[in-house]
Amino acid sequence: MSGTRPRRLIAVPLPALPEVRPGDDLGGMIVGAWRALAEADPELAPAPGDVLVVTQKVVSKAEGAIVDLRTVEPRPEAVAFGERWKRDPRQVEVVLREAVEVIRMEKGVIITRTPQGYVCANGGVDASNVGEAETVTLLPADPDRSARGIRDRIAREMGVAPAVIVSDSFGRPWRWGIVDIALGVAGFRPLDDQRGRPDTAGRVMQATVVAVADEIASAAELASGKTSGLPLVLVRGAVLPEGDGSITGEALMPPSADLFR
Amino acid sequence: MSGTRPRRLIAVPLPALPEVRPGDDLGGMIVGAWRALAEADPELAPAPGDVLVVTQKVVSKAEGAIVDLRTVEPRPEAVAFGERWKRDPRQVEVVLREAVEVIRMEKGVIITRTPQGYVCANGGVDASNVGEAETVTLLPADPDRSARGIRDRIAREMGVAPAVIVSDSFGRPWRWGIVDIALGVAGFRPLDDQRGRPDTAGRVMQATVVAVADEIASAAELASGKTSGLPLVLVRGAVLPEGDGSITGEALMPPSADLFR
Repeated sequence: MSGTRPRRLIAVPLPALPEVRPGDDLGGMIVGAWRALAEADPELAPAPGDVLVVTQKVVSKAEGAIVDLRTVEPRPEAVAFGERWKRDPRQVEVVLREAVEVIRMEKGVIITRTPQGYVCANGGVDASNVGEAETVTLLPADPDRSARGIRDRIAREMGVAPAVIVSDSFGRPWRWGIVDIALGVAGFRPLDDQRGRPDTAGRVMQATVVAVADEIASAAELASGKTSGLPLVLVRGAVLPEGDGSITGEALMPPSADLFR
Repeated sequence: MSGTRPRRLIAVPLPALPEVRPGDDLGGMIVGAWRALAEADPELAPAPGDVLVVTQKVVSKAEGAIVDLRTVEPRPEAVAFGERWKRDPRQVEVVLREAVEVIRMEKGVIITRTPQGYVCANGGVDASNVGEAETVTLLPADPDRSARGIRDRIAREMGVAPAVIVSDSFGRPWRWGIVDIALGVAGFRPLDDQRGRPDTAGRVMQATVVAVADEIASAAELASGKTSGLPLVLVRGAVLPEGDGSITGEALMPPSADLFR
């Protein structure tokens, strides 16, 4: 990679998708939405270097990563936590079932490590935006694989293989508010390792590894927004680290490197 | 604010600045750079809703928030940590002087809380990209105030008051890599509080507060890049929460809410 950067980054939402349900052909729906976008503006047809950002919610729904809360029997710990903090104890139960490690469970907040290795609030279990009020979505079983599937489908049907990100909204310690990050990627490497590259003063930077995939997910969120029903965003103009990367393989800190447990 | 979102987000770097030195008129340099951008493309002249993202490094330099390491006498703790982890003990000393609380100091990493309330690696003390090899930059004393000063200056000279973000690169627990976030803002509120706003299924979302300012800082980083010498980026098309906000007043979690100390 060179230090040259693009003149302009753009992020454009694709047309809205209909409600996604378990077993739906999400790849086909995405191809249809991108074709509609390209019909309205031919410059936005898939091109090399494009990134398609897909929110976790539609991926989880299509993959059937959904739990009907009416089938969930909360353990006593989930009932107590739910009563104390005014949370649905059945949802708390699902969060605990999805956890390989509970990092924090206090002040109404549950931070867990999921089987895939993500550390996040509620293990990614999410109540909002699901069609039925009594269901929650889980994280996709393997978001990198989900991203690869979408990328391959677009390549097959549209002749160009874009980079793909499956995104989700995560909170951060020490700062209020959520930002969108990458749960899974395909077609590029999520980290831009600039260590050893000279900075503008000609010195070698010691510790600059930029989480490019996370920044792209955040840019996409700005273009679509949480309440808009626009789960697909095209981001064009980012410099993508070349290679065949993954989030679980490269971007998640192993517990041994983790200072906050 | 409405739930309507823009059709397109763009992020465009302004022309490069010359090396910034203590006492330089950064506001004037920014106005000059923006005028040059607008001359090349009149559509990019300042317009309502624009955000100008300015990296911390040039703000710190112009404000003289710089320490010459040759004047620093490291305490024994800084010498020991430096020897063990191959870090400049004088820089470790500066980090400790800038800290009101040391959150972690292990595995070669120092996480502190600064007087302004930021929790970050090395208290924001940064060695790279400073003109002389023997200096480090500190965080600006009050980045919200710095942002307000830049906004007022642009308004006075160019007739439009853009939103302004002073950005920096922060790491995050649990994930590798840094992302750009907002240290200070002017002309909008950094958090988009969507609690109580109906989601696409018509239900009221319980806990969605989007850190819009941080996402804009990340989008700007994608357009400029760390090694490019482009410290100014125009971001257009984001929906900005209205009001007169600040990062230190709204976006930083107080220690009482903090689960990770």
